Amino acid sequence: MIQQVEITLSPKARGFHLVTNEIVQHLPELPQEGVVCLFCLHTSCGLSINENADPDVRTDMETIFNRLVPENNPAYVHTLEGPDDMPAHAKALMSGVSLTIPIMRGRLRLGTWQGIYLCEFRHHGGARKLIATIIGE
Amino acid sequence: MIQQVEITLSPKARGFHLVTNEIVQHLPELPQEGVVCLFCLHTSCGLSINENADPDVRTDMETIFNRLVPENNPAYVHTLEGPDDMPAHAKALMSGVSLTIPIMRGRLRLGTWQGIYLCEFRHHGGARKLIATIIGE
Amino acid sequence: MIQQVEITLSPKARGFHLVTNEIVQHLPELPQEGVVCLFCLHTSCGLSINENADPDVRTDMETIFNRLVPENNPAYVHTLEGPDDMPAHAKALMSGVSLTIPIMRGRLRLGTWQGIYLCEFRHHGGARKLIATIIGE
Repeated sequence: MIQQVEITLSPKARGFHLVTNEIVQHLPELPQEGVVCLFCLHTSCGLSINENADPDVRTDMETIFNRLVPENNPAYVHTLEGPDDMPAHAKALMSGVSLTIPIMRGRLRLGTWQGIYLCEFRHHGGARKLIATIIGE
Repeated sequence: MIQQVEITLSPKARGFHLVTNEIVQHLPELPQEGVVCLFCLHTSCGLSINENADPDVRTDMETIFNRLVPENNPAYVHTLEGPDDMPAHAKALMSGVSLTIPIMRGRLRLGTWQGIYLCEFRHHGGARKLIATIIGE
Repeated sequence: MIQQVEITLSPKARGFHLVTNEIVQHLPELPQEGVVCLFCLHTSCGLSINENADPDVRTDMETIFNRLVPENNPAYVHTLEGPDDMPAHAKALMSGVSLTIPIMRGRLRLGTWQGIYLCEFRHHGGARKLIATIIGE
């Protein structure tokens, strides 16, 4: 009824990355009906759903998020870990770090144009870990 | 224990819309205790929880989101689908496309002032589809 | 298999607050494996995951969110409940009001640097209520 796996995603450059296949490869055989709850164990990257077809969307997303939370704002106090760190925490709060995706007929039920994004907000975030909890029957 | 339904919401104008009743009408009889996981199958609209009473909140939300992600930024690369498209993807990433709402005594357990919003970020988004997965007993 | 509790958090000042311990204290004995779904019953505060170590992160988060959604924008229509009210609704929509956190070996499985934040966007938000739904075995 409940299965749980820890998934390690390979290190990514700063930016928005389509990781649907990388995640699905690590999942066990899925139940016929249910949900998978993905939870990212970090505070400077995000997990979200967005467009899976045109890489330009991921490029523009980076432009938009950098405009929303600029680096080097002199008001920031938390600066010891580099100029990309505090903005990364704020962007992670905006994007979220958890997703609950339906499972139907033994597969993730995403929309035609949907993919899972790892939003890597650090320059050198390294490998990122997720917990996947599968609830189904 | 687990039930799943696909819900089609009627087309909405660009803006924030209260859809609690429209969604509840499509749900089967709910268990006494559990959760309903709603997942929107699109990448240019969002699903969220917000104020259910004053329509002005929805008007101001549109003002705020348009200021956050302006259209026609010359830096955007993904422009072929119209000036509202790329901002819509970014707003959807910010609002999120999935919600997990508690079920108590056979009903959605929302706060007094809470309702479910469909955040329609496109001018002509058309009908929007959701998957509702009910987990309960 | 499913347990549900209502949790009341003590009133907090406007700002971002680490509430992991306050929430865990109110949870019943957890199953070995599963998830806890937290749902905040309000529309002017948020629930999210972020950095648990340096209080400066919470200070800068307040700076960043105030810059994202300024008060006293003359375009706002929903102003009767005070200048902090409409921005609070928008910030709540951006941060989200629900979280699904994995449970592993009978405990919340958070990352080393993760904590649960109550994002209090009102000056006088008062006590805030959550529903925790535990699904596990």
